[in-house]
Amino acid sequence: MDRADTLATLAHQTVTFADGMTLECGVSLRRLDVAYRTYGTLNAARSNAVLVCHALTGDQYVAEPHPITGKEGWWEMVVGPGRSVDTDRFFVICANVLGGCMGSTGPRSQRDGDGTGDGPTDTGPWGTEFPPVTIRDMVRAQKRLIEHLGIARLFAVMGGSMGGMQVLEWVALYPDAVFAALPIATASYHSAQNIAFHEVGRQAIFADPDWQGGQYWRSGKVPARGLAVARMCAHITYLSEQALTRKFGRRLQNAPKDPSEAITLFGDMFEVESYLHHQGSTFVHRFDANSYLTITRAMDYFDLAADHKGDLANAFRGTRTRFLLVSFTSDWLFPTAESRAVARALNRAGANVSFVEIPSDKGHDAFLLDEPDFHRTLAGFLAGCAEHAGLDV
Amino acid sequence: MDRADTLATLAHQTVTFADGMTLECGVSLRRLDVAYRTYGTLNAARSNAVLVCHALTGDQYVAEPHPITGKEGWWEMVVGPGRSVDTDRFFVICANVLGGCMGSTGPRSQRDGDGTGDGPTDTGPWGTEFPPVTIRDMVRAQKRLIEHLGIARLFAVMGGSMGGMQVLEWVALYPDAVFAALPIATASYHSAQNIAFHEVGRQAIFADPDWQGGQYWRSGKVPARGLAVARMCAHITYLSEQALTRKFGRRLQNAPKDPSEAITLFGDMFEVESYLHHQGSTFVHRFDANSYLTITRAMDYFDLAADHKGDLANAFRGTRTRFLLVSFTSDWLFPTAESRAVARALNRAGANVSFVEIPSDKGHDAFLLDEPDFHRTLAGFLAGCAEHAGLDV
Repeated sequence: MDRADTLATLAHQTVTFADGMTLECGVSLRRLDVAYRTYGTLNAARSNAVLVCHALTGDQYVAEPHPITGKEGWWEMVVGPGRSVDTDRFFVICANVLGGCMGSTGPRSQRDGDGTGDGPTDTGPWGTEFPPVTIRDMVRAQKRLIEHLGIARLFAVMGGSMGGMQVLEWVALYPDAVFAALPIATASYHSAQNIAFHEVGRQAIFADPDWQGGQYWRSGKVPARGLAVARMCAHITYLSEQALTRKFGRRLQNAPKDPSEAITLFGDMFEVESYLHHQGSTFVHRFDANSYLTITRAMDYFDLAADHKGDLANAFRGTRTRFLLVSFTSDWLFPTAESRAVARALNRAGANVSFVEIPSDKGHDAFLLDEPDFHRTLAGFLAGCAEHAGLDV
Repeated sequence: MDRADTLATLAHQTVTFADGMTLECGVSLRRLDVAYRTYGTLNAARSNAVLVCHALTGDQYVAEPHPITGKEGWWEMVVGPGRSVDTDRFFVICANVLGGCMGSTGPRSQRDGDGTGDGPTDTGPWGTEFPPVTIRDMVRAQKRLIEHLGIARLFAVMGGSMGGMQVLEWVALYPDAVFAALPIATASYHSAQNIAFHEVGRQAIFADPDWQGGQYWRSGKVPARGLAVARMCAHITYLSEQALTRKFGRRLQNAPKDPSEAITLFGDMFEVESYLHHQGSTFVHRFDANSYLTITRAMDYFDLAADHKGDLANAFRGTRTRFLLVSFTSDWLFPTAESRAVARALNRAGANVSFVEIPSDKGHDAFLLDEPDFHRTLAGFLAGCAEHAGLDV
C-alpha cells in the first residue's frame, strides 16, 4: 500500500465544527475538523484536563500504538498510568494540529468549495494551496476542541519543541484558561539557523518531480525522495554530535548493492548513513509532504515577542499561570539560552516560573527519550501545581 | 551557457603524468592530470615553496579571479603581495584536488580505456564510476606536482577544513618534505555528524532525476536542484547561529512569484532563505555533482589515527616539522576540541606545536573571511619558521 493510501484509509476520532474558522492570514475555512485522542477520565469538576501539544512530525497518538507504524505512542514514557503525567489522575487530551495529516483540517482535506462547483479550484484536496497557518491558528483550533469537551480551564498545557511554542501561545492568548504551562525544549521564536534548516527540507521537497507542484494526489505518486531528504536533514538537528558519535561513531557496514543508494569506498558505508536512510524512508509512509511544508512554515513564522510590541514580557503581563521551562544541555536546535530568554521575560512579567536545564547528551530529542531526571521534574511540578490548584482526584 | 558547458570550456594550467597513478582502492589511473596555479617566484635554493591545499568546494584559483564566477580568489585575504602568505617572499602553489572538477583528473575526465575500445564502459567520462579517492591519494597527486616543479622540500603546507586534512596527511606521508605545517579549522577524522550532513547532500543529488545515475552528461542536463540542496545544507554548517542571526535574523523580504520556490505567509519569505537559494543556485554553475560525491566521500573516510594503528601520535613520530594549529571558537563543524586532539597527539609524538583558538562568531567559514587575528597569527608563525629555516629571500 503506498503512503497516500495509508494516510487516506485511516479513521480518526474527530470533532467537526461546521461553522469553520477564520485563519490569521484572513482565509476562512468553512469547516474545521479536529482529530484528537484522550487518555484517563475527566473528573466531575472538569478540573483535571492536561492538553499535550505535539511537535512538527508528531500527532495525537501520545500514549497508544501509532495506527500506521504500530510503534508505541510518542510520549508513552511520560503519559500513562503511573507516569509523570498520570492518566489515573489526569484527563489527557492531544489534538492533531491544524495543517497536519492525521485527521485535522490540513492540506489533505477537501477544499470547502464556494458552492458553485465551478471547476477544479473548487474541489479536491487543498494540497499546497492550503492557506498558511500559524501557531496561533493551531491553538485556536485546540481551544474549540477544549470547549467542545466542556472544559473551561485546563489544569495544564504542555509540549516540547513546536508543542512548546503552542504552550506559550496558549498562555498569551487565553491567560485565564491555563493553570500550569510546561514549554519544553522550545523558544519564543524560530532562529535564523532553524529557518535555514527548514528551508533546505522544503527545497528538497520542491526539487522532487513527484511533488508535481503540490498536486501529487493526482498521479498517486508522492514526493518520497524529497520528503526523505528533508527528514534526514532535520533528524540530524534533533540529535547531538555526542549522541551520533556514541550511537554510530565511524563504524562501517556493508553497502547496499544499488549504486544509486550510496557512494562507497572499499564497498563499505557508515552505519550513521544507513540509520539516516531508515529515518527518511520510514517517515514518508506516515507523513504528508504538504503538511510538512505547512507546519514548518508555521514554526518559522512564530515570534511571540513580535506579536506583542517587541517585548516578550507583554505576552504574559498579569498571568497567574505557573510555568515550568525545561531545556536540555546538548540541544542545539532549541538551546538553553532560548528557554532562559523566555524565563527572563516571564520574570519581567511577574510570573511564577521554574526553569530546569537537564543534563543530557541526547540533543533536542531528549524530551522524547528516557531521561529520568526530566520525567521526575515533570511529575514533581505537576504534583505541586495539583496541590496549589486544590485538585482532588 | 549551461553549467556543464561552462566547466568544459575552461582551460587550466595542467601537468600530465603519462604513467598515471595507482589509487589506494587498487584502481590504476592510466594518466594523471594535475591542474595548478602558482604565485610568486621560486628562489634559487628552491626553499621558499608554500603549498596551499583547498577545501571541499575550493580550487586552485587562490589569489586571482575565479575563471567562472569572476570573483576574487578564495584566499586573497591571506595569499598575495604583503599578505600573511607574502607572494613577494614565498612561491605559493595550489593544485586542484584529485577527484575535482577544475582540471585535475576526476569524474569529468575521460576514462582511460583498456585499449580494446569495447563498448561504452571503455570511453566517455568516468562520471559516478570514477574510482573512490582518499585524502592520501590527493596528497600523493600533489607530491607528483611538487617533484615536477623540482621541489624536494616544501617550506610550508597549509590549508583549512579538507585542506587541513591534506596538511596532516602530507606530514604523515612525507615527513621530510615539509618544514612547517598549518592545519586550520580541521580534524584528524570526519565525525559522525559531519558524515551525516554529507550524506544528506549526497541523497539530495541522488534524488534528482537529472542525476541520471551519474551519467548526466549524456542528456546535457545536470542535477542542479539536487546539488543546490546539497550546497544549501552544507552551507548552514559552514556558518554559526550567531553569524546567521547577525546577518539575517528574522528579517523578511518579498517572496518570489513562483509558488514552487517558496511557501510564504502573508507573501513574505525570510532573507536567510533567499541567501541560501542564492548559495545553492550559484554553486551549480561552478561545480560538478559527481566531484561533490567523490570529494565528500574522501573526507568522510579520512581517519588518520585508524591508518596508524589507532594512535594519531604514530602518524607523527619523529617529525621535525613545526606545526601551527588554528581553530575558531564558533566553528561547530570542526570544533576546537578536534584541533586540540591533534595538538595532544603531536605533543605525544614530541613535535613542535603551536595551537591558537581564534575568537570569532563566523563559524567554520572564518578561515576564509576577514579575521585579522587569524591573519596576524599566520604571518607571525611563518616569519618565525622562515628564520629557523634560514630562509633567505
